Amino acid sequence: MNVTILGCNSALPVIERFQTAQIVHFREKMFMIDCGEGTQIRMRQFKIKPTRLNHIFISHLHGDHVFGLIGLISSLGMVGRTADLVIHAHPDLEKMLQPQIDYYCAEMSYKVIFESIDPRKHVLIYEDRSLRVFSIPLKHRVPSCGFLFEEKEKPRHIIREMIDFYHIPLKEIPFIQQGADFITEDGTVIPNERLTRPATPPKRYAYCSDTAFSKRIIPWIEGVDLLYHEATFLHTDIVRAKATGHSSAQQAAEIARDAHVKQLIIGHYSARYDHIEDLLAEAQAIFSNTRLAFDGLYLHA
Amino acid sequence: MNVTILGCNSALPVIERFQTAQIVHFREKMFMIDCGEGTQIRMRQFKIKPTRLNHIFISHLHGDHVFGLIGLISSLGMVGRTADLVIHAHPDLEKMLQPQIDYYCAEMSYKVIFESIDPRKHVLIYEDRSLRVFSIPLKHRVPSCGFLFEEKEKPRHIIREMIDFYHIPLKEIPFIQQGADFITEDGTVIPNERLTRPATPPKRYAYCSDTAFSKRIIPWIEGVDLLYHEATFLHTDIVRAKATGHSSAQQAAEIARDAHVKQLIIGHYSARYDHIEDLLAEAQAIFSNTRLAFDGLYLHA
Repeated sequence: MNVTILGCNSALPVIERFQTAQIVHFREKMFMIDCGEGTQIRMRQFKIKPTRLNHIFISHLHGDHVFGLIGLISSLGMVGRTADLVIHAHPDLEKMLQPQIDYYCAEMSYKVIFESIDPRKHVLIYEDRSLRVFSIPLKHRVPSCGFLFEEKEKPRHIIREMIDFYHIPLKEIPFIQQGADFITEDGTVIPNERLTRPATPPKRYAYCSDTAFSKRIIPWIEGVDLLYHEATFLHTDIVRAKATGHSSAQQAAEIARDAHVKQLIIGHYSARYDHIEDLLAEAQAIFSNTRLAFDGLYLHA
Repeated sequence: MNVTILGCNSALPVIERFQTAQIVHFREKMFMIDCGEGTQIRMRQFKIKPTRLNHIFISHLHGDHVFGLIGLISSLGMVGRTADLVIHAHPDLEKMLQPQIDYYCAEMSYKVIFESIDPRKHVLIYEDRSLRVFSIPLKHRVPSCGFLFEEKEKPRHIIREMIDFYHIPLKEIPFIQQGADFITEDGTVIPNERLTRPATPPKRYAYCSDTAFSKRIIPWIEGVDLLYHEATFLHTDIVRAKATGHSSAQQAAEIARDAHVKQLIIGHYSARYDHIEDLLAEAQAIFSNTRLAFDGLYLHA
């Protein structure tokens, strides 16, 4: 599971940072989280082809997270896309976007399907053979939710030599991968632990933006491999952070520490800061394995 | 009168070229023509402050010319703008944009005023003390018009020595600047040509995009100092140009030549061309004083 940051500034873009958008790459698939203005430009600049992009998850309906949708949708139509595109978002998005699609993208070659999210609930919102995506209720000025990308439990690793040794028929292998013991013809039980090694732990990526400091999210993101948490402000601007429903870098790091995540990426920087390294220093004082997001950053969960 | 190109690609952006947007600088004022996605980002990248931007002229309602408006409007609100912003466009724009402004830009600190353009007519659409802007009806798949920015006739230059020599009272100067003769106390008529030199010719800039080849526009742009004319295609793709209501580079140059313009800038390139220099060569074969637009180009009319 990998993530490409397409944009990581907050309300206003700056020269080198667009507004929020990310790509989650998982096996052969590609998912988008949020879609700020210029997302389609960033995809071209970072050489990300949208062919395998079929699902977009929108955290909330502030402009800096959605204004790139109509341009992306329009351009996908112009290049003759045929696969459906599913947008998971608060139901108001459809009301705002469908009239624009009808007007600007007449006779499109593909369908845009809106799937409604209730951002107040922690629920499964997407599932396929190998992945689940859950909503993470956040605390913001408007209904907002993060997303937890969770690889499904993988099968246990078969120990080839043991399979050969006990002459285990191939049809039994899937059951053994799932943890079943094997019973030989003479009735001897061979415990699963002798036949397999534990599965590689499933990867988990959590995206939490936009949100004020909210301890409520900790159980949902406990132990994730990678957490993207907004850090719009320095803690010296905590009054402004609270008033606008955002977090400080210190608060992002406290969440990462208390949720025992493996790595923290901070982003959604306010345009007021010329030196975002100050945000990094503030977070690292609390949670050392923190990195700064930047447009074009590609990282492993 | 100066022009900054913010974006000059056509329907699809490419890595180094955003979709259409331009700034016309005239004395202390600033005007925008079209507003493709990412225009606000380009303004920051090219260090153009929007403070003095009060009028935006939209040629037509294709997405690549308007998708940047909502982001720009929203960001201007966030930085506390108070001055009205007037958008001159086909009346459908207001229908599409006002609901978005109402939803995404609640309680904005300034007003967006829509002024309706009838793109089929060549009429005065803006006027102030020193400038007039006219619409130029174009030929496209949807109603489309270009814009002619025309500096007003300037006063004649006073020859200071003559004013002193004839002891002309200061209150007479404005009349003499406008071409009046001076009559001395003894009744002698001093012809204006002895007191003044001709005014500097008013500058004129014409923007013609999007449009198929249309000789009809020639009288309206006759002799302009600078013409921006779309050149979406090479002439070898003329069938596609006609089908989509666009021009070839050759056709843009023919218009420039037949209208006796001083300089031609071509742009609105199709994303299919890797070497836009081919478009330049094609145009220069017909009209040598041609330049290629690029994002960030700043030029004098």
